[in-house]
Amino acid sequence: MLALHRSKSDSDPSWFAACPELAAIREPAWLEATKAAQRHNIHARRRLFSDHELNRSFLIVIKGRVQIYKSERGREIALYRLEEGDVCLFNVVSQLFGNPFYRVTAITETEVEIASIPPEHFKRAFEDSAEFRHFIVTSLVRRLTDMMQLLEGIVFQRLDVRLAKLLLARTCDSEGCVCITHSDIAKELGSSREVISRLLKEFERKTWISLARGEIRIQKFKDLHDFIQCRAPLTEPPK
Amino acid sequence: MLALHRSKSDSDPSWFAACPELAAIREPAWLEATKAAQRHNIHARRRLFSDHELNRSFLIVIKGRVQIYKSERGREIALYRLEEGDVCLFNVVSQLFGNPFYRVTAITETEVEIASIPPEHFKRAFEDSAEFRHFIVTSLVRRLTDMMQLLEGIVFQRLDVRLAKLLLARTCDSEGCVCITHSDIAKELGSSREVISRLLKEFERKTWISLARGEIRIQKFKDLHDFIQCRAPLTEPPK
Repeated sequence: MLALHRSKSDSDPSWFAACPELAAIREPAWLEATKAAQRHNIHARRRLFSDHELNRSFLIVIKGRVQIYKSERGREIALYRLEEGDVCLFNVVSQLFGNPFYRVTAITETEVEIASIPPEHFKRAFEDSAEFRHFIVTSLVRRLTDMMQLLEGIVFQRLDVRLAKLLLARTCDSEGCVCITHSDIAKELGSSREVISRLLKEFERKTWISLARGEIRIQKFKDLHDFIQCRAPLTEPPK
Repeated sequence: MLALHRSKSDSDPSWFAACPELAAIREPAWLEATKAAQRHNIHARRRLFSDHELNRSFLIVIKGRVQIYKSERGREIALYRLEEGDVCLFNVVSQLFGNPFYRVTAITETEVEIASIPPEHFKRAFEDSAEFRHFIVTSLVRRLTDMMQLLEGIVFQRLDVRLAKLLLARTCDSEGCVCITHSDIAKELGSSREVISRLLKEFERKTWISLARGEIRIQKFKDLHDFIQCRAPLTEPPK
């Protein structure tokens, strides 16, 4: 599954260019860690954390997009996305803690390039490089913020409003075509495909969208916007 | 609101006895931090983070119980509880980050004793004491686990099952009396008082509980248990 390449110039952290904060660190412990780093090229739609070696290392996304999600009994919820220069909250905390503390899955949404750094090098860099620690803390804050926004959305916003927002955010052409399947919407919103399909049919009945085989198309952008605006101050609580 | 006492023996961290991991640390940077620590005694049912001085310091609960919750537009959700020796995820990350990064509220559930350490001392201890860093990481993992369990509960479990679990967990005598108000249940479960009251009425109709003025009493423990058992594998998704 993985094509592994050692970094060509071992003492040169320039291939962390995707992550300027890391590329700028010149402290020895971090530079040592970059020498031990390995690059991995991974195809789209692959499970990342199921790979044992990757799971045990500190990971940085160099290129592409990775989705982190939690699944349980066939239901899934997308927690956040990692892009260029991002690190995963759960991966970082597991490295710091010395053990995977919470089971999440990472899936590559596109072709992805990842750098992995062995745990002992990560630990030394975290202990001895104040700048690397700062990078790690900043990354934790970003991912925690993502998680809190997700939780807030689920607790404080109606599912139909969150669906309307997602449709508007995922429009991929001027025709109003929305590039996402019913199942993927369910995963993003922490719901089930059946509930999402029912809400989409309801939106279609209101003529806000049209549904065809494998296609969702927004017909009335303004109506969707208005719906979000007027329903955003929660009147009826989510069940 | 706050009664402030300087620690009597400045170089003696023994008043961190509530937190053996901290009391065991003998590294100079942490011992220095303990010298700058202040104790605060706070009455029950007070908002903690609204106090400016506390908000800007690193806080450790020495005695009592503090609830951390998020509120928005009149709705609330309890995120986790802090007890003896606990530290708040958001407080820690704000200290590390140098800024409050996410707005939560802390309320004292009981009379509470708290130690506060000024940010510069917290930072130095975090930079220079590997054992203190270990304590912080372990605390982060605990609170993150709480948060993930909360999120999982909301996404993957039905509200009525979560309500049944909460009632059983909060029984405070052998008569089945449950010591919590409808509003507080709503806050714990991230729902509204109206929805909770409706579900409680439904439970009463099934004769599992009885409702009287300001009182919830479990009548059929076994039926509640069975309900949780048979509904736990999610068949119908939460809306």
